[in-house]
Amino acid sequence: MDTNNSYEVVVNKMMKDDLFSQWLGIQLLEIKEGYSKITMHVRPEMINGLGIVHGGIAFTLADSAFAFACNSRNQLSVALDTSIQFLKPVHVGDTLVAEATELHNGKSTGLYLIQIFNQHQHMIALFKGTCFRTSKKIIP
Amino acid sequence: MDTNNSYEVVVNKMMKDDLFSQWLGIQLLEIKEGYSKITMHVRPEMINGLGIVHGGIAFTLADSAFAFACNSRNQLSVALDTSIQFLKPVHVGDTLVAEATELHNGKSTGLYLIQIFNQHQHMIALFKGTCFRTSKKIIP
Amino acid sequence: MDTNNSYEVVVNKMMKDDLFSQWLGIQLLEIKEGYSKITMHVRPEMINGLGIVHGGIAFTLADSAFAFACNSRNQLSVALDTSIQFLKPVHVGDTLVAEATELHNGKSTGLYLIQIFNQHQHMIALFKGTCFRTSKKIIP
Amino acid sequence: MDTNNSYEVVVNKMMKDDLFSQWLGIQLLEIKEGYSKITMHVRPEMINGLGIVHGGIAFTLADSAFAFACNSRNQLSVALDTSIQFLKPVHVGDTLVAEATELHNGKSTGLYLIQIFNQHQHMIALFKGTCFRTSKKIIP
Repeated sequence: MDTNNSYEVVVNKMMKDDLFSQWLGIQLLEIKEGYSKITMHVRPEMINGLGIVHGGIAFTLADSAFAFACNSRNQLSVALDTSIQFLKPVHVGDTLVAEATELHNGKSTGLYLIQIFNQHQHMIALFKGTCFRTSKKIIP
Repeated sequence: MDTNNSYEVVVNKMMKDDLFSQWLGIQLLEIKEGYSKITMHVRPEMINGLGIVHGGIAFTLADSAFAFACNSRNQLSVALDTSIQFLKPVHVGDTLVAEATELHNGKSTGLYLIQIFNQHQHMIALFKGTCFRTSKKIIP
Repeated sequence: MDTNNSYEVVVNKMMKDDLFSQWLGIQLLEIKEGYSKITMHVRPEMINGLGIVHGGIAFTLADSAFAFACNSRNQLSVALDTSIQFLKPVHVGDTLVAEATELHNGKSTGLYLIQIFNQHQHMIALFKGTCFRTSKKIIP
Repeated sequence: MDTNNSYEVVVNKMMKDDLFSQWLGIQLLEIKEGYSKITMHVRPEMINGLGIVHGGIAFTLADSAFAFACNSRNQLSVALDTSIQFLKPVHVGDTLVAEATELHNGKSTGLYLIQIFNQHQHMIALFKGTCFRTSKKIIP
């Protein structure tokens, strides 16, 4: 990956400090202005009490993609309101890819849609996130 | 905890198999028909790239409380649509309590509200979940 | 109703200008700081293509209750993100009451929950709303 | 419009009975399997207490597009959980177009995304809807 663009500098800084995304094994695939694409591999310790992957895992993946996309311009933005729909169960061994796209880039808020696909290109969850933009920067 | 009631038998079975909730260190405080209350302690590996606790942690806690409440009658129910609002940042060392209450218990679906509080009794997040009820049982 | 309090002055001004709430026949029952309770009667022209009341009617009632509660302090606030769950069908002739309560009153945003009940005290819908607070006033 | 396809027969039946969509002046632009596109013109009686168009109007337009798309296969489906984000204010005289696309067509539930644009092709709201599929038909 070309590390010369400013979006990558911001997201690499976020990734370096993001211990929970590291625990999940999240890898950055692509970052652009208002856009991110990340992936992870599902491990046994991620299942819930029904034997399928915990909804919190898919949420975390989507929420990380959301955070990278909405902070890509180096304006510190925090999640305000998010929702996720679960469409198909996820199993141990699956590889997930989350792609965040920007629907609205307002002065104070932003709106993002994150689709999560499994290795069969089936959409397993849809996440919608609204962020609030602060006046701070990620990289001063 | 009195282990004689049927709701506890179901939730103890779910907890025993729920490896991700175990990783989070979730403890059951109370379970009743359509109701659950659980707690966890926030550890350093749970932070995000902004130095506060990852939204996926609060979501997972709420989603587990939701799962325990909506499956308490031993009718297998899965999350369909969920949303969470983040009200205050969570920090390493905080103790969180999630309380799930049932707003609607329909034949095919159910609606639950989960409030998460920190050790100062401040609400840090509000979660709303709709589940879909299958014809299967947790404990045959 | 005591018309001396400042919350009522704000909401009466909003109601006077709110032509769509007037078309719905919305009546104010109670207004307090961060709280409102309103009612309406369901007429035949409010049904949808399935013969029950259009979801847009229940949404509008909840959204009006939300607007009155979140603007009650005379700080102009606009809906940012809202969701509604439909729990029971509404029929022509029903009387609906919507009650808005404030869960969070932040500097830039607020979170409100609106419950709608019918004349049998059954909850027919649950609405959750996040507003964004501007620096303007309703009454200068 | 070609009235020979089965999706149009279903939606025309729904439109004929939908008195509230008629009040709004909703016109069908296109209907396909799991897809609908409708339009309306914003009138003075649709404003709220802040002088802009009531959120309930945009919601109703989106909810109607959702209903037409999710019922297009003649399997009676009802809204379960919906959310809407408001991105830009709508004014009297604007012409709105809502386009509903299907993201998931499950046996018991379906997921739809509805985008609303104004006459300047700006997205003014984004709606997400989950429906529950019954075993009944719209046209027996």
